[in-house]
Amino acid sequence: MEFSDLFPVFSKLTKAQQDLLLSGVSKRTAPKGTVLHRGEGDCLGLVLVAEGQLRAFLTSEEGRQITLYRLFPWDLCLFSASCSMRSIQFDIQLEAERDTVFWLIPADLYQALSQDSLAVANHTNEILSARFTEVMWLMEQILWRRMDKRLAAFLLEESELEGSSTLKTTHDRIADHLGTAREVVTRMLRYLQSEGMVQLSRGSIAITDEEKLRELAL
Amino acid sequence: MEFSDLFPVFSKLTKAQQDLLLSGVSKRTAPKGTVLHRGEGDCLGLVLVAEGQLRAFLTSEEGRQITLYRLFPWDLCLFSASCSMRSIQFDIQLEAERDTVFWLIPADLYQALSQDSLAVANHTNEILSARFTEVMWLMEQILWRRMDKRLAAFLLEESELEGSSTLKTTHDRIADHLGTAREVVTRMLRYLQSEGMVQLSRGSIAITDEEKLRELAL
Repeated sequence: MEFSDLFPVFSKLTKAQQDLLLSGVSKRTAPKGTVLHRGEGDCLGLVLVAEGQLRAFLTSEEGRQITLYRLFPWDLCLFSASCSMRSIQFDIQLEAERDTVFWLIPADLYQALSQDSLAVANHTNEILSARFTEVMWLMEQILWRRMDKRLAAFLLEESELEGSSTLKTTHDRIADHLGTAREVVTRMLRYLQSEGMVQLSRGSIAITDEEKLRELAL
Repeated sequence: MEFSDLFPVFSKLTKAQQDLLLSGVSKRTAPKGTVLHRGEGDCLGLVLVAEGQLRAFLTSEEGRQITLYRLFPWDLCLFSASCSMRSIQFDIQLEAERDTVFWLIPADLYQALSQDSLAVANHTNEILSARFTEVMWLMEQILWRRMDKRLAAFLLEESELEGSSTLKTTHDRIADHLGTAREVVTRMLRYLQSEGMVQLSRGSIAITDEEKLRELAL
């Protein structure tokens, strides 16, 4: 897909702004598993997803992770350009969960455009607000929802994303999504198995009673 | 303080925009302890603090709370106007921690101004980004910092805010700030007391070894 089709306010820019933007953006690919952005002050730029799927996550000093949100086609990631937004003082990491094609917008170019175009500034507000909503939802989950319910909801969501009731994943990987330790995930998966909701085998988890899992996730 | 002195982009508005804004805003007072905004879809408007101190917090269905951030003079709260920002789909609550004077900006008026003024749109971006940074910091604390360290840091911050080494507060109230249960706070305060860092008495906590508390908070 072309950049102009993916960037929703493109048609609201002046011809000069459009030309400036088109001359600055570049199309990139990231095979599944690529870490696009490590945080720590590196300044990738803004990422506009054309195909595939990205995971935005946090990493602790000890290497623990938690998934903040996913980015799908049409989604724009601002936080990989936090270098150019002085009010954003935190680092996220980005990795490709599928083979991904994306447009890269240089941070300085987007920042200049925001200062110059009301449409871009308001689009940035929309994106910030939407991400804020996702992160606040996650914070409430972490604070107030039992881990077994979060795990049940996660398995159902992943199953929907993958279009399969069998998930190829590891306990480590699930712990990285949920922001907990592998041992906690293993213990809870065994509990779910003992209740007949899942069937565990090496490198995969099969959902065997979706309805019961949905009840737990409520 | 006058509205035009407190609202940082006032001078960047046209005369017509300034007049529109001044005709819509109103000065309000909230005595200490007032809940200004309960969330749940009520639409207070934007709150621009002139004097005093507000606490923005989340409440769980079971009534547990956690402090998200504080608002001081010059700070603008957008989330008490989430009704007019369709991308913001979460509710915060606001209460006055001191006798507070604030200017109220009607949500629709601010929204209309954002669509019309680049300065306002970019100011909104700055505020959203700054709050996002605070909330991400809090999320990392919740996920990866031990509760005793969070409690130590909280006591030191409160002592600085109050300008006193003796805090007039309850274990319940501290639990509401930190998003945990009262029993957890009581247990940890007793531990801090046994280590000589604080002295507990009814309705107050005295910091008796600030240096040791600071070491714990690291």
